[in-house]
Amino acid sequence: MNRIEKLRVEMKKSGLSALLLTQPMSIAYLTGVKVAPGERFFALYVDEKSAHLFVNVLFSVTECSDAEIQSYKDGDDPLKAAAEAFPENSTCGVDGLMPAKLLLRLQALRSDLRFTDGGALTALVRMYKDKDEQAKMRASSLQNDEVMGELIELAKTRISEKELAEKLLPMYLKRGASGFSFDPITGYGPHAAEPHHVPDGTMPKEGDCLVLDIGGVLDGYCSDMTRTVFLGEPSPEMRKIYEIVKGAQQAALDFIKPGVLLKDIDTVARDYIEKAGYGQYFTHRLGHGIGLEVHEEPSIGLPNGLHAEVGMCFSVEPGIYVPGLGGVRIEDLVMITDEGVELLNKFPKDLIVI
Amino acid sequence: MNRIEKLRVEMKKSGLSALLLTQPMSIAYLTGVKVAPGERFFALYVDEKSAHLFVNVLFSVTECSDAEIQSYKDGDDPLKAAAEAFPENSTCGVDGLMPAKLLLRLQALRSDLRFTDGGALTALVRMYKDKDEQAKMRASSLQNDEVMGELIELAKTRISEKELAEKLLPMYLKRGASGFSFDPITGYGPHAAEPHHVPDGTMPKEGDCLVLDIGGVLDGYCSDMTRTVFLGEPSPEMRKIYEIVKGAQQAALDFIKPGVLLKDIDTVARDYIEKAGYGQYFTHRLGHGIGLEVHEEPSIGLPNGLHAEVGMCFSVEPGIYVPGLGGVRIEDLVMITDEGVELLNKFPKDLIVI
Repeated sequence: MNRIEKLRVEMKKSGLSALLLTQPMSIAYLTGVKVAPGERFFALYVDEKSAHLFVNVLFSVTECSDAEIQSYKDGDDPLKAAAEAFPENSTCGVDGLMPAKLLLRLQALRSDLRFTDGGALTALVRMYKDKDEQAKMRASSLQNDEVMGELIELAKTRISEKELAEKLLPMYLKRGASGFSFDPITGYGPHAAEPHHVPDGTMPKEGDCLVLDIGGVLDGYCSDMTRTVFLGEPSPEMRKIYEIVKGAQQAALDFIKPGVLLKDIDTVARDYIEKAGYGQYFTHRLGHGIGLEVHEEPSIGLPNGLHAEVGMCFSVEPGIYVPGLGGVRIEDLVMITDEGVELLNKFPKDLIVI
Repeated sequence: MNRIEKLRVEMKKSGLSALLLTQPMSIAYLTGVKVAPGERFFALYVDEKSAHLFVNVLFSVTECSDAEIQSYKDGDDPLKAAAEAFPENSTCGVDGLMPAKLLLRLQALRSDLRFTDGGALTALVRMYKDKDEQAKMRASSLQNDEVMGELIELAKTRISEKELAEKLLPMYLKRGASGFSFDPITGYGPHAAEPHHVPDGTMPKEGDCLVLDIGGVLDGYCSDMTRTVFLGEPSPEMRKIYEIVKGAQQAALDFIKPGVLLKDIDTVARDYIEKAGYGQYFTHRLGHGIGLEVHEEPSIGLPNGLHAEVGMCFSVEPGIYVPGLGGVRIEDLVMITDEGVELLNKFPKDLIVI
């Protein structure tokens, strides 16, 4: 079954007669056509029988697996053409990330239709990595382990957060990655307490923790991992926090198996941290799905009703962030396979002082 | 009158009781709060009397001019809170770039409301640069003039398009820019005939034209200019084309003054090129507004009914692109001021052979 056919199965389950997708990554996944459309209309229409790809002639797309190419020029009105394709008086889906201005026009052009968020359907198909994708996820994280090793070596030279981040890109590129999967986070001391800190000129102080949250894109698939190391002997409290985070992650990893409710994996880690007295400092969900994009479905922590199933890939990343003091996060990717659960990152997690 | 008050004036004109914005750049402009929210809900709600900024606690936003901060945590439902703020039974605007999934939920939560695309209203306010912004636009283009000089010097060393583009970034950074305002275009010979060419390994041939379309971001404000130079003596036809483009740009610049219809500025340049026999090779609008983003309102060429008014900043960039032969584009930024029209780029435009 090709990917568009898998999408049709999900559409049928959800009672959607048609679906209009606008996210380039989803379209690339479903059709093999990769375009960076900028502000120009680029959309895939799928119904029970047909599939049409609307693309500006500027992008010179001539081949497309499983969808018919509908070229248009600047000045044409491809959204109107797409609107006309929808079956009458039906419930239809649109990409959840479609700009609201397009949806408002679709609703005005086709008042007979009921539109719903159909973006989740592609996410559902993409959530289950096939064998080929599983191999790519494995290779991408293996590369990330290597890069983490090289980065920690570099951190021994005591350079600024920004320098660490700047010297990271070549480590991926020389190993064949196309780039970062997200802007890396390198944060010393109190900056480690900001889960989304932007690296700056800060230099390490003796005993500082250093959060390294990094990932690359290899063969189209993303990696993402975090380690926290110490530059000199940490304070007893930071050492304690480290062990709590490590324990929480291990508890979550031990709990994961096909069939468990994803939300419960978050609960296991959260309970662990709460019992240790740091519940208020674990301020984000436990993890996120990953694949072609660094943040995909499934979310680990939101009450989405999903269970762990073969092909799912996601991060397990508990953290404790104490403002002004510092933070610890430990993150690995896992994949649910026929055999059970596979830990994609092999890099050690014992507390290290560099 | 502060920026949110200016927005309220536009809302009133358009009959909108409230507006929900989600574009980070618009929110930064209106509130001073700069956040890269990723997938997290980040929105500014504005109605006649109140303004609320919905932001995840992760981003540690504690100060905000002119809007009340509504912090939320992962797991909360900030969209529901925002939906409850809208006045009953009214017509309300949403950001045109808001993800459709948010709009669909808003529509479901508040079936008493009529939603329209209100994104254009912020663009209207942002279109008129105040004194502080005018000074920043001036400084940014002055920097771009300097960089263009350095880039043309570099081009004398006969390196590939890609090398030119790669060596450009440090020229901006060392002058205090935060980066490019767009991916630069450096195109030799026939590549200069593609208005959106992506620089590659192509090396120059004797007599080639070289289009250099570059811009940086200084203090948050974008520059954008184009010069076309020749590597060795150009052919008589390319020399002729150059002079036509230069003449067309000058005719447009001479025509601009407060009060003229923006569309007519495009017509002046287009007529000039058409009369010279190259009308079919001028394939894009004459210009675009610029400011915090490299492409903003107003558009110069689309029939938008707008007139030149104090504070507007836009590009004037006629071009002639002859497939297989080459292309010439000359682009400067202008700003409408109390005194009349100010040319922000001072870099010379006489044909130069390097």
